[in-house]
Amino acid sequence: MTEKNLSMLFDFYEMTMANGYFNSGWLDKVAYFDVFFRRVPDGGGFAIAAGLDQVIEYVKNFRFDPADIAYLEGRKLFPKEFLSYLSNLRFTGDIWAIPEGTPVFPNEPLLTVRAPAIQAQLIETYLLLELNHQSLIATKAARVVRAAQGRPVMEFGSRRAQGIDAAVTGARAAYIGGCVGTACTLTDELYGVPALGTMAHSWIQMFDSEYEAFRTYCELYPNNATLLVDTYNTLKSGVPNAIKAFKEVLIPKGITNFGIRLDSGDISYLSKEARKMLDAAGLTGCRITASNSLDEYLIRDLFMQGAKIDAFGVGERLITASSDPVFGAVYKLVALENDAGEIIPKIKVSENTAKITNPHYKRTYRFYDNQTGKALADLIALHDEEFDFSKDITIFDQYATWKTKTVYDYTARELAVPIFRNGELVYERPSLEEIRGYCADQIETLWDEVRRFENPHAYYVDLSQKLWDVKRELLKRNKI
Amino acid sequence: MTEKNLSMLFDFYEMTMANGYFNSGWLDKVAYFDVFFRRVPDGGGFAIAAGLDQVIEYVKNFRFDPADIAYLEGRKLFPKEFLSYLSNLRFTGDIWAIPEGTPVFPNEPLLTVRAPAIQAQLIETYLLLELNHQSLIATKAARVVRAAQGRPVMEFGSRRAQGIDAAVTGARAAYIGGCVGTACTLTDELYGVPALGTMAHSWIQMFDSEYEAFRTYCELYPNNATLLVDTYNTLKSGVPNAIKAFKEVLIPKGITNFGIRLDSGDISYLSKEARKMLDAAGLTGCRITASNSLDEYLIRDLFMQGAKIDAFGVGERLITASSDPVFGAVYKLVALENDAGEIIPKIKVSENTAKITNPHYKRTYRFYDNQTGKALADLIALHDEEFDFSKDITIFDQYATWKTKTVYDYTARELAVPIFRNGELVYERPSLEEIRGYCADQIETLWDEVRRFENPHAYYVDLSQKLWDVKRELLKRNKI
Repeated sequence: MTEKNLSMLFDFYEMTMANGYFNSGWLDKVAYFDVFFRRVPDGGGFAIAAGLDQVIEYVKNFRFDPADIAYLEGRKLFPKEFLSYLSNLRFTGDIWAIPEGTPVFPNEPLLTVRAPAIQAQLIETYLLLELNHQSLIATKAARVVRAAQGRPVMEFGSRRAQGIDAAVTGARAAYIGGCVGTACTLTDELYGVPALGTMAHSWIQMFDSEYEAFRTYCELYPNNATLLVDTYNTLKSGVPNAIKAFKEVLIPKGITNFGIRLDSGDISYLSKEARKMLDAAGLTGCRITASNSLDEYLIRDLFMQGAKIDAFGVGERLITASSDPVFGAVYKLVALENDAGEIIPKIKVSENTAKITNPHYKRTYRFYDNQTGKALADLIALHDEEFDFSKDITIFDQYATWKTKTVYDYTARELAVPIFRNGELVYERPSLEEIRGYCADQIETLWDEVRRFENPHAYYVDLSQKLWDVKRELLKRNKI
Repeated sequence: MTEKNLSMLFDFYEMTMANGYFNSGWLDKVAYFDVFFRRVPDGGGFAIAAGLDQVIEYVKNFRFDPADIAYLEGRKLFPKEFLSYLSNLRFTGDIWAIPEGTPVFPNEPLLTVRAPAIQAQLIETYLLLELNHQSLIATKAARVVRAAQGRPVMEFGSRRAQGIDAAVTGARAAYIGGCVGTACTLTDELYGVPALGTMAHSWIQMFDSEYEAFRTYCELYPNNATLLVDTYNTLKSGVPNAIKAFKEVLIPKGITNFGIRLDSGDISYLSKEARKMLDAAGLTGCRITASNSLDEYLIRDLFMQGAKIDAFGVGERLITASSDPVFGAVYKLVALENDAGEIIPKIKVSENTAKITNPHYKRTYRFYDNQTGKALADLIALHDEEFDFSKDITIFDQYATWKTKTVYDYTARELAVPIFRNGELVYERPSLEEIRGYCADQIETLWDEVRRFENPHAYYVDLSQKLWDVKRELLKRNKI
């Protein structure tokens, strides 16, 4: 069993800063922070938001235990009054977020925190960690699932995951992204993601012969037999022994729901040869599962080569998103409230223009075409802007401001929803099945051009004129 | 708080197989499994073993709770007798392992399990996950630390880690690999890895001016001031304001232990310019810390360009080992005991020669040169082979058997040590500081040629003649 207070999962500088805010008397100074990312991993056209449910659990339970306070006291940096304040601290602010399973794009706020600065600062690391990790894996899973063209994809990577949660919540995220299940049994017990699997090579090695191993398995699990055929020689031994076991044990019982798994060698060649052998034996319904260092690129190539594969087990390259293993969402201060309760926008400038933040408390809208149901563009606007979405709307690119797009005959939807209000959870948390279904539906609203693996069409995420004016004004003022 | 039974962190097929062994009456059938890897990440010359201490905790606590049994019952695959057996199952076997912090090489057993097959099978996933993850990060950290040429490297990647444990035990592994500390406070509280950090951009944004932010920080933390100078303009605003704050607040108090941090822009150029400005102001002792998407390659290049950096904060590229984010250790059956207690070696063959396993219960020795103290070669032998290590020994490459090497004037050391004996922990667990010190010492025993980042010299890991004979005989017998 593991047990730890996740409230201590903060970067140490968040606590030195929090104590600094306390020292400055800013106990009630309200700050706004946005979570957003700047680049879709793997050069993809969109990402899938995930991890919010774990963030909710964390925020609900945010508190420091006596042991935590004792640790902090031992650091000899923090005065007693501050530690006493910390020991009673709970999250009392507001959070808005884009629901899990939503396709999201660079620069739009995935989550916004409005809270006293001390609280908002201390929750930074965990929020980023959870949203970054699960969005990374959900995004990767959606790519692999698209490559599989409707065939089921199983997540098999626990043993290569980067730690316990990488396996457990990683499998949850993979399920959101479209996988049908996982090898990780703990993820099933905790989250209800179907745990799948039949045998490893050790099963075959435990018996005196491969055939005996197959036969025993078919007798024990007649309705769950996927035989691993590459322990000795796939085509000369594995497939013939599997055919024999199916014919002697399962076919006489009228069972036809079985399969083989290829886990080494050239999957394209072996699957085609195995398919011929199975068909020649009359086992046309026998599934072929492949599971050797797969990802979206290899799966796409396998189909191009005519591989005969009915299901995929995808391991390390999915659970670590190995081709691009970082989802780089950041947490940036975008506004402060002054004593009169007015919102003062804040900006972080940078020599790198892409790193300049979008200031202010904002809202994001998505426009769907009424004819096709497809998503046309997203618009980031100030929180209090009024729009008449019954009329055509013209939006423009924030980097190439001369590029405009007029949207007509559309339906607008605000992407973020309220999650916490004054520290109270106000969000009805959907089930994991609902999130997964919503995700699949929302991916369908994207044009194929946005879903391309490489060099996809850049979906429009534009700023409102008012937001752009605020940003320009702050940039001018911050010019050194 | 999180609480979960890690015994449920198994791949589902391990349970279907375990039930199969139970069904075959193999409750006491003893199996030997080796953990080993085939390739060092990033093409490096060696890896650092890590994660054993968490494996020990897991094995000690291995058990299934009533809720776990209820979950398994709900799967409708396992008979009542098996579930009843499971509910009383504990680990009763033996484990040997190479201690954490040891440089290790492909194909040698990092850990060996001798246990009833059911137990040995069920612990597979967690063992691999923990050893793979922590060895991955310790190995990467050792590379980054070597690149830093004696300057301290701080682990700053929690927010981009792949889940909670990726951050927490990842920082532990980074410390073993040579980092001086972490941003992750929970890792300090749990494992005593020093938690470090001062301020983020939000600290500066909270104040009306950059100077005020710096001055306030220096007043509050006079002995812990590292000022982040890139919020507005590094050279025109950040560095001058930092110099002013140091001179007005710290120098008058006689404090000279302070620094600045560069987190964006061209670190090479900015560090050189900042160094000139600091020196011109008489602040020659002021440290410059750099922290923008660094890894061993960029750090090496920065030094080649004459960058003036005294310390490094390394984030996402270390905590995810992003350039090669998978440590591919596997868990393979190498032997079974028959009813007479004789050890019967087992092999897994493959069309890919590198994937053929080394059979049998084995021991691994490392030879150190008595003159230089350097490691010369490792030898994998059968468990019961007797060697006279007072004499010269000739070993040979298992793939290029004509390549031999004679070792003389050496000291031999067995790498693995007993961890569990009949389910009892028999290993005195070293402290994390001891592991870290041992790791640094052991890396010093490797030739520079083995430590090269790219295309390093391949360290010799050879098989004994007797092990080679066993392997050849099994390969012959398994030829289809």
